[in-house]
Amino acid sequence: MFFTLKTSEEVFKILQEFEPLGEETLPLDVSFGRILSEDILSPENLPGFSRSSMDGYAVRAKDTFGATESLPALFEVTGEVVMGQVPNLAVGSGQAIKISTGGMLPKDADGVVMVEYCSTLDDHSIEVSRAISPQENVIQHDDDFKKGSSVLEQGNMLRPQDLGVLAGLGLSRVAVYKKPKVAIISTGDEVVPVDKRPAPGQVRDINSYTLAAFCLRAGTEPIMMGLCVDDFEKLKGRIEDGLRDADTVWISGGSSVGTRDLTLKVFESFKDMELLVHGISISPGKPTIIARAGSCAIFGLPGHAASAMVVAEVFLAPFLSHLQGQKDFPKKSYFEIEAKLGRNIESASGREDYFRVKLKKMGSEWIAEPIFGKSGLISTLVEADGLLRVERNREGLYQDQNVKVMVFDSLERGFF
Amino acid sequence: MFFTLKTSEEVFKILQEFEPLGEETLPLDVSFGRILSEDILSPENLPGFSRSSMDGYAVRAKDTFGATESLPALFEVTGEVVMGQVPNLAVGSGQAIKISTGGMLPKDADGVVMVEYCSTLDDHSIEVSRAISPQENVIQHDDDFKKGSSVLEQGNMLRPQDLGVLAGLGLSRVAVYKKPKVAIISTGDEVVPVDKRPAPGQVRDINSYTLAAFCLRAGTEPIMMGLCVDDFEKLKGRIEDGLRDADTVWISGGSSVGTRDLTLKVFESFKDMELLVHGISISPGKPTIIARAGSCAIFGLPGHAASAMVVAEVFLAPFLSHLQGQKDFPKKSYFEIEAKLGRNIESASGREDYFRVKLKKMGSEWIAEPIFGKSGLISTLVEADGLLRVERNREGLYQDQNVKVMVFDSLERGFF
Repeated sequence: MFFTLKTSEEVFKILQEFEPLGEETLPLDVSFGRILSEDILSPENLPGFSRSSMDGYAVRAKDTFGATESLPALFEVTGEVVMGQVPNLAVGSGQAIKISTGGMLPKDADGVVMVEYCSTLDDHSIEVSRAISPQENVIQHDDDFKKGSSVLEQGNMLRPQDLGVLAGLGLSRVAVYKKPKVAIISTGDEVVPVDKRPAPGQVRDINSYTLAAFCLRAGTEPIMMGLCVDDFEKLKGRIEDGLRDADTVWISGGSSVGTRDLTLKVFESFKDMELLVHGISISPGKPTIIARAGSCAIFGLPGHAASAMVVAEVFLAPFLSHLQGQKDFPKKSYFEIEAKLGRNIESASGREDYFRVKLKKMGSEWIAEPIFGKSGLISTLVEADGLLRVERNREGLYQDQNVKVMVFDSLERGFF
Repeated sequence: MFFTLKTSEEVFKILQEFEPLGEETLPLDVSFGRILSEDILSPENLPGFSRSSMDGYAVRAKDTFGATESLPALFEVTGEVVMGQVPNLAVGSGQAIKISTGGMLPKDADGVVMVEYCSTLDDHSIEVSRAISPQENVIQHDDDFKKGSSVLEQGNMLRPQDLGVLAGLGLSRVAVYKKPKVAIISTGDEVVPVDKRPAPGQVRDINSYTLAAFCLRAGTEPIMMGLCVDDFEKLKGRIEDGLRDADTVWISGGSSVGTRDLTLKVFESFKDMELLVHGISISPGKPTIIARAGSCAIFGLPGHAASAMVVAEVFLAPFLSHLQGQKDFPKKSYFEIEAKLGRNIESASGREDYFRVKLKKMGSEWIAEPIFGKSGLISTLVEADGLLRVERNREGLYQDQNVKVMVFDSLERGFF
């Protein structure tokens, strides 16, 4: 069967046409890693009152002017600020009130002398050995956020500190994009479940596990729908289940051309299904099928685990980010580092090639070593640290050339 | 009160003395991101039988020798390999059997001709226009993994592809280190819950949310134990609860010196508690307390959110990795990128300074812009992309100097 392969740019354009999922409002403690669906403006001034940023004594700054170690200024200590309470005293001329970091500045005080520059003479008096400026060591009532000012923007992924700031502002619930649910179906008559001993000619289901973990890494929810034999009605039923329960359906074909053709036939049998992509000019990953059913994207992925993984890294990672409202599709989904290529590689012109590479540190540089070997081996996946893209119009890359490597997941392997 | 500050190297050494948590055995579908507690050797040969890595025809390679487009070799097609089954035919001289990718190689065949180089003449014969070598397009029975060979090593964090390979080998359960449970207690009389309107002098609880999300990011389980007022018995009871339910207890003090002293007194009141660290020579983060109770580490963190966050990034991230069996403590816990410093910064000699920085791309370079402003502001946390460490013996860094920035979390902000 002949069909027109799409370029990866065309595929990105097609995927971008899908709408991000709807919003939901969540409590802060379950919002980590989710993407904001609205801009956040500060609902109030923060901290809302003048606070000390140091442990020390609240004073009138001008009373310290001229104070030095050899000529300290004397202060009468008239009380202490109780944490969390409005001080019941004002600070008069020549007076000091003891205050802790975070304490509320007493009336008529305009600065805090750090405790390090104060010597206690007796219970009611201190000497100050350094002058302070007005507002020194003080956070004013709107220093952190002014009411109405921008705090976070739509499309931001919520980090620990972002959640902390939302908590500080009293925003105990936050509007985020929904988390995509991904139905994962593994097909192929030769594929058996992981806990079954394969007979000769059979292999265990790899893709369900690879793709489910891939979804977790992307902050989405995999629904492992299990194995499906190469049977039209059964596969159709399984896809219908997926469309009902999930936001996108991923079918990884068995490796055979028969399975791929069957997947295509099932796709075409749906009334509202629109075939968008039938083959992509990349290697590995060429026999990828993409269709639309309503608002749902359905992917027919290559059966071979390494090919499915490449398609997932290149297209599905940005697609899942896009469904979650991430901006700048597909750029922000990749994590690339610069490396020197370890040896020459050849690439067929007219298609985009993805080489699995291992990264090694040599001095301060990263060396990307292409992993060669038979194309059907799954062991190469475990060896690899990332993918090296060779553009469509290139016939190869030279040893020592600077390249960018799409790293699978950096922190885990401690690259840096 | 005077005490001897520890350097960060000393603190790392102390933290490394804590034992990683025990192991547990988990099904693959809940093992993503967990760290292997044992080496994995292949329990069998994989794939276990000779398979085709292409769609095409299984033949005896020598029958194709000399075949070209102008002088193709003729083959009799005697059957087809059914996926997942042992072929019931052997390949005779001049014979070909149709085979799909992943199909089992028939007896007496030693290579596969890709379908692209075969022309169908009729139902029972093809012409082959290219010679193949023996074993071409064939994966042999132990090409992927030989029985007993190394698959993954103890201390590896399980990535999607690692789980796939384990599934392929039939290892449906895997031994990993336990996930640390972290009890988080927020103290300070001035702190109110996020859903309560603070009176003047009060602030909302930020640290519970920042630290809980931080634990999630590190793949651990936070237990938010809520607020605790500055009361000896109440704080002691809360810490006892934490010690019972969690593997490590984190108390973030209110900002005041009173709260810190109270935390210390409570620590000292436990019979089996050993005070390990009372102050670290870093800024921010100096007033950090670390104690040991049995196998459990207890941290008294600074009350200020930005300081607590720095201590978490610098010490608690590697500590949580260490508890989970990650090797090479603490190196692998940081994710650093190289940048040029945007302006001069001064640092006090004798302490390690951590500056919050914003990263900006200029051409192909990253510029690290220090975020200045009053030290008590939480808004700086939201602005910052990472931390810049200035070593103890440095008095500052110059503009345009090359520096390494510890990035908070890279993927989310799409740095690359």
